[in-house]
Amino acid sequence: LAMRLAREAAGDLQLYPDPDASALKECLSDFYGLDQSEIMIGNGSDEILNMAFQAFCSPEDGVCFPDITYGFYPVIAKLNGLPAKTVPLREDYTVAPEDYENISETVVLANPNAPTGIALSPEDIRKMLEQNPGRLLIVDEAYVDFGAVSVLPLIRDYDNLLVVQTFSKSRSLAGGRLGLAAGNPLLIADLETVRNSTNPYNVNRMTMAAAIGALLDRDYFAENCRIIAENREKLVAALSSLGFSCLPSKANFVLAARPGTDGETVYRKLKEKGVLVRYWNRPRLRDYVRISVGSVSEIDELISALSSLSEVSS
Amino acid sequence: LAMRLAREAAGDLQLYPDPDASALKECLSDFYGLDQSEIMIGNGSDEILNMAFQAFCSPEDGVCFPDITYGFYPVIAKLNGLPAKTVPLREDYTVAPEDYENISETVVLANPNAPTGIALSPEDIRKMLEQNPGRLLIVDEAYVDFGAVSVLPLIRDYDNLLVVQTFSKSRSLAGGRLGLAAGNPLLIADLETVRNSTNPYNVNRMTMAAAIGALLDRDYFAENCRIIAENREKLVAALSSLGFSCLPSKANFVLAARPGTDGETVYRKLKEKGVLVRYWNRPRLRDYVRISVGSVSEIDELISALSSLSEVSS
Repeated sequence: LAMRLAREAAGDLQLYPDPDASALKECLSDFYGLDQSEIMIGNGSDEILNMAFQAFCSPEDGVCFPDITYGFYPVIAKLNGLPAKTVPLREDYTVAPEDYENISETVVLANPNAPTGIALSPEDIRKMLEQNPGRLLIVDEAYVDFGAVSVLPLIRDYDNLLVVQTFSKSRSLAGGRLGLAAGNPLLIADLETVRNSTNPYNVNRMTMAAAIGALLDRDYFAENCRIIAENREKLVAALSSLGFSCLPSKANFVLAARPGTDGETVYRKLKEKGVLVRYWNRPRLRDYVRISVGSVSEIDELISALSSLSEVSS
Repeated sequence: LAMRLAREAAGDLQLYPDPDASALKECLSDFYGLDQSEIMIGNGSDEILNMAFQAFCSPEDGVCFPDITYGFYPVIAKLNGLPAKTVPLREDYTVAPEDYENISETVVLANPNAPTGIALSPEDIRKMLEQNPGRLLIVDEAYVDFGAVSVLPLIRDYDNLLVVQTFSKSRSLAGGRLGLAAGNPLLIADLETVRNSTNPYNVNRMTMAAAIGALLDRDYFAENCRIIAENREKLVAALSSLGFSCLPSKANFVLAARPGTDGETVYRKLKEKGVLVRYWNRPRLRDYVRISVGSVSEIDELISALSSLSEVSS
């Protein structure tokens, strides 16, 4: 079946892709238990987020997201001429649903959030959906498969919920470009109008074939996510033993800080040893580095690099 | 080299594509004799046209194109809230440069035009560029490789020229999705701003690999275009012998009409015989069908179907 579907999707490169992506949507609908009318696909989730901003937001009622989150939201808001309001994360870097009580703008949440890795529960998201049934909530679940709980099933209860996922993280297909939106058929129909008006052939045949392959190999996918979650806990334990404190991540990265060192210093010293992490020179993130969860041997390498670093500084 | 480049581009699907598309741009720049700063790539030329409308047009100064042309231009104009002015084709279905003398809007021309197949000469386009150096002219060369002359070399003389091409027609990669914009580096930089603000990873690794392969096989490409141009002339000759008149096409299709039959009738009778052509139920196109240039045996099949049809109707 996988071969047949892949051949159908990737063969005949001289022909346009199926604009309805029927073969891929059949697999998506099987995997997620959704109707095809509840799904739209895109050339990565960034494209879908941009289309959602175009379809559902206007300069009169802009968008709103946490002050610390995925850096692409303010970029696409600006491009689309949408005012963007931010709500500060709490002291512990969590999103507090009650802080969104009086927000009338479209709310965009990364869940788990980036770069904190902290996840909201479906109950919290349900609360936010109920705060204002006329307000759209976009939940960007780019990292959800590494240990958080998806709110995909809630799209049947709430017509103001749009869930966005990507094949770039847990499906290991960042180089193939596939994103996914799920929501009430009316929301999806509006998104499809934007897609059909800008780029009806936005997902190519080869990407469809790769995505079908990824969806059909459920065991590989589950095992891969399990290993990353397991390695994350190993990484957190090892970092703690070196005096780092880590935010409680459900993603494939960890935000970690050690008292007395700023993120940039850790970044520079690790880079000297050939290990790349990320830091931000901005308030509230200055003390942290974001460390991607790698294989066990990569974690060992990082920890050994950090140990020699602490010997030097102590 | 082809293999090395293709491996680089298509390997490591778990990694994001190169947002600068360096390997592909190197090949494009070799093929077209352009600097990499004069080129932007997109997920098909439709995406590029939409980005160009976003980058260069505003509701105050909209867009302008012929009344008969590629049907996607009015769609993306509408989506972007841009007023669209149309200029009627002349009696013989040609674009007359002097009709654009007093147009201040961004002008979009398909060259060759669709569905007429009629091409403008570089001299005509030069005239239009000089009518108003402050007005952008977008030339959509989707079908240029089948016998018209590209104005790509003119981008060095005119900073108000943006040329758009696609890999969907002469490169036989409609299923792979690649479009191309060429222009003055300042125009390209503006387009890149839109691309980076909406979808910096808009072209995936597999598409890059396929496009590199297509660019490196120059002989196959040239031979393919030559055969289509040759078959087009065979098709036109055969249609003429059956009493059809054809517009002088430089594309991979021919717009043909026979006095006394409308396009829809020809379409229906051919469909009964398993041959698909296209017709339009609108003024000035009602008498015509658009016939794609196929292989010699496909042309024979079409002509035989049309002959039996003319026996019936005569």
